[in-house]
Amino acid sequence: MAPRTTRILEAAARLIARRGVRGLRVEELAAEAGVSTGLIYYHFKDRTGILRQTLEFINDRAERYTAGRTSDAGPLAPREELAEILLLELQDTPMVRENSSAWGELRASAVFDEVLRDDLARATLVWVQEVAALLGQVQPTAPPPALAASGERLTALLEGLSMRWLSGGLRIEHARDVLRGAIDAELALLRGM
Amino acid sequence: MAPRTTRILEAAARLIARRGVRGLRVEELAAEAGVSTGLIYYHFKDRTGILRQTLEFINDRAERYTAGRTSDAGPLAPREELAEILLLELQDTPMVRENSSAWGELRASAVFDEVLRDDLARATLVWVQEVAALLGQVQPTAPPPALAASGERLTALLEGLSMRWLSGGLRIEHARDVLRGAIDAELALLRGM
Repeated sequence: MAPRTTRILEAAARLIARRGVRGLRVEELAAEAGVSTGLIYYHFKDRTGILRQTLEFINDRAERYTAGRTSDAGPLAPREELAEILLLELQDTPMVRENSSAWGELRASAVFDEVLRDDLARATLVWVQEVAALLGQVQPTAPPPALAASGERLTALLEGLSMRWLSGGLRIEHARDVLRGAIDAELALLRGM
Repeated sequence: MAPRTTRILEAAARLIARRGVRGLRVEELAAEAGVSTGLIYYHFKDRTGILRQTLEFINDRAERYTAGRTSDAGPLAPREELAEILLLELQDTPMVRENSSAWGELRASAVFDEVLRDDLARATLVWVQEVAALLGQVQPTAPPPALAASGERLTALLEGLSMRWLSGGLRIEHARDVLRGAIDAELALLRGM
């Protein structure tokens, strides 16, 4: 991706995280990214194009910060990799806060506006399948539908916890403990199958 | 509560569910409720007062529609009452849609705005404790911290599922199945303690 396009998407994620999807105006985005509105329309066609590309951009970014340690310190055991990938969504860093706030806003905007629904559903499905695959590496004898159900529960729980944390209702360490408890519970359930 | 106050809060919940917290203007609320802006300021003092009362209003409403069947058809067994109270949050009716959308918006607004944080945290805590108490009726020998943790996971999962459903990413029947699976998993975990 061209550096200028990246700069626009970074600015869009920042603005959405700060003020929501409905507050996003192309003029403001242009000012935030330090480019002309014409350039934004040239690259993204319209507001829908901006939103769809921003969703993809924040998903790619989450992919990177949740994959962090695996490449630094050699491969982890499946159980640790699973916990790591999920727990790295609950880090109190400006990047994760911004990314998760923007994700929550894009998700919430789809309640009123159909434009992002398919992209969100697809991104969620990919995430659920990724977690289900990791669960399958820990519990290879568990039936695939049970793995998919566990993956769905863990990721939906993580979205719920993330919103509670971001909205100030939960300390980050507590949110992480709750998530750890859920991973243990799902693995115990899959082990018993 | 005076009927006119109720009418204003009903209108506020409707507007927030339709356009979000940031889109809520007192003039528009007055028009939607068919009252003067002066009356709104008289009853709620300011915008914060409106938001806080609306949060309480939608919580009371959820309390009513999730308690539904117990009063109609005699008391349920603890296991059924638990499932009922949680599953009734996932009904495809205009009331539940509106209430859950408004709750999601109020939750999301607290990411940017501190004003509702304490009320949201308190409402969430009451809900978690209620679910923990029901879990304790099903599994009386489970230790209280384990019951609280299960209650926290089930309610956070429900918030996550609710957003996925409202944003069009999940059919309601599937969301209910996922929730049923989570209730089973939590009860199995508590049984093993």
